[in-house]
Amino acid sequence: MDIDFNIKDLNITIVGLGLMGGSFAKALKPLKPKNVWAIDIDGDALGEGVKLSIIDRGYLNPKQPLQDSDIVIICLYPTLVKPFIEANKDNFKKGSIITDVTGVKIGMMNDINSVIPKDIDFVFGHPMAGREKKGLEYSSAQVFQGANYIITPNQRNKIENIETIKWIAKNVGFKKVIELSPQKHDEVIAFTSQLPHVLAVALVNSDDLGIDTGSVVGDSYRELTRIAQINSELWTELFIENKVNLIQKIEILQENIEKIKNSILEEDVESLKEEFEESSSRRKNL
Amino acid sequence: MDIDFNIKDLNITIVGLGLMGGSFAKALKPLKPKNVWAIDIDGDALGEGVKLSIIDRGYLNPKQPLQDSDIVIICLYPTLVKPFIEANKDNFKKGSIITDVTGVKIGMMNDINSVIPKDIDFVFGHPMAGREKKGLEYSSAQVFQGANYIITPNQRNKIENIETIKWIAKNVGFKKVIELSPQKHDEVIAFTSQLPHVLAVALVNSDDLGIDTGSVVGDSYRELTRIAQINSELWTELFIENKVNLIQKIEILQENIEKIKNSILEEDVESLKEEFEESSSRRKNL
Repeated sequence: MDIDFNIKDLNITIVGLGLMGGSFAKALKPLKPKNVWAIDIDGDALGEGVKLSIIDRGYLNPKQPLQDSDIVIICLYPTLVKPFIEANKDNFKKGSIITDVTGVKIGMMNDINSVIPKDIDFVFGHPMAGREKKGLEYSSAQVFQGANYIITPNQRNKIENIETIKWIAKNVGFKKVIELSPQKHDEVIAFTSQLPHVLAVALVNSDDLGIDTGSVVGDSYRELTRIAQINSELWTELFIENKVNLIQKIEILQENIEKIKNSILEEDVESLKEEFEESSSRRKNL
Repeated sequence: MDIDFNIKDLNITIVGLGLMGGSFAKALKPLKPKNVWAIDIDGDALGEGVKLSIIDRGYLNPKQPLQDSDIVIICLYPTLVKPFIEANKDNFKKGSIITDVTGVKIGMMNDINSVIPKDIDFVFGHPMAGREKKGLEYSSAQVFQGANYIITPNQRNKIENIETIKWIAKNVGFKKVIELSPQKHDEVIAFTSQLPHVLAVALVNSDDLGIDTGSVVGDSYRELTRIAQINSELWTELFIENKVNLIQKIEILQENIEKIKNSILEEDVESLKEEFEESSSRRKNL
């Protein structure tokens, strides 16, 4: 990918130094940007970031770092992004690029594009990486290794700025960076990310065995339920924001579970084998 | 655990040298039993076992190895176990111990206990370990490391023979070996093993995105769907054999999915957070 910038000339500010922000800071460090700053309301997190040498300086007040930043990576909870942009819309440097990590896009893009100044380019992104834990202490550059990154461009974006965000995504460790419309993104994410979380939570909450389940599980139960340990604040926001898509995907799944249930009830061996062969072939090609 | 035998004095025969049988052979080898033999209808698998030095000899005809074996580990598909026992009931050595690896117990135990000679002790077992692939080539002693093993004793079993099977389970790498009634085992397995497989298959078969799903998934989708690549023959047998328990567990899950769906529909933030906090706490304690 051709790029017309040198990362060593850029000041980058991370807004929100939690799991995602901390992981960005850790993964950006080896690329040696001019400065990596962080903004947070939690002074302890900022102090820890400086102590770990993953940021050059931390700020409780966003004004100064935003004024000098070429790139701003917003790693806040979805509902906090718009208020942050509104409160700081006059603080961003002219020509700077802002990006985010939010898991739902349509509403976010409408909200943001209605308030953002013309000379600031917000390139919306979704790094498909995370952990079931929250906070700087669980952050790691490893979180991004080999993962997928979705960019949802819109007509306001300059092509070179999209390329800049793609370059950063690739260089902090993401393997595939693809572009989707916000509509397709939200549909895709309802299926590949939100639906698995619904399932994992529902499965764990269906445990009525009355014994120490840990003694009687295999790898499959452990793997399927890892994400049932979930950041309840974040995922409640994401589910409700993407309600229409998610409900639709849940209903398709419900039909498929019902179909398998009926095949078992009717001891319909052929139909069960068809389901298994279909899923095996799809999973193999994933 | 006190044992009154030395593994070095024992001849052990594995019936069915596939994924499970091969893994037993590989895990038993370092324990140095007197002999490890295998019986299979596939001469190539037996040849491969000898070539890999994981068995001392392979047999197409079960008679001779069974007559000299102190322990027989049956690693056949569920529906093949009873026919094998019936066909060979006069071939087993007096006082020998037979065990199995079958994932559903009630029907199997009734079937087997009605045909097995009095002086042979069948200790039913279920190593909760496996892989989504089948065959000797995917077998590995690693499959058992740290996994759980369930034994379902019955009144025919001698305590010392149960202890022998437990000793073997521990020494081939299993971490926890617990005893359950066959009824409880089948209920437990419907929830911890079969239900996750139903879910994974239903999830993968719900993919209607129409794009390369592999580019837009995170760890959660990959983990939840690994077991959707499934041995269709084996799992069809297991599901139908354990139909009553499995249907019951599917229905509990369906209620929980419906509950979460309704909370999303109604944007019931409090109820969603309750579900997430419940699942987080349960998963943490697993």
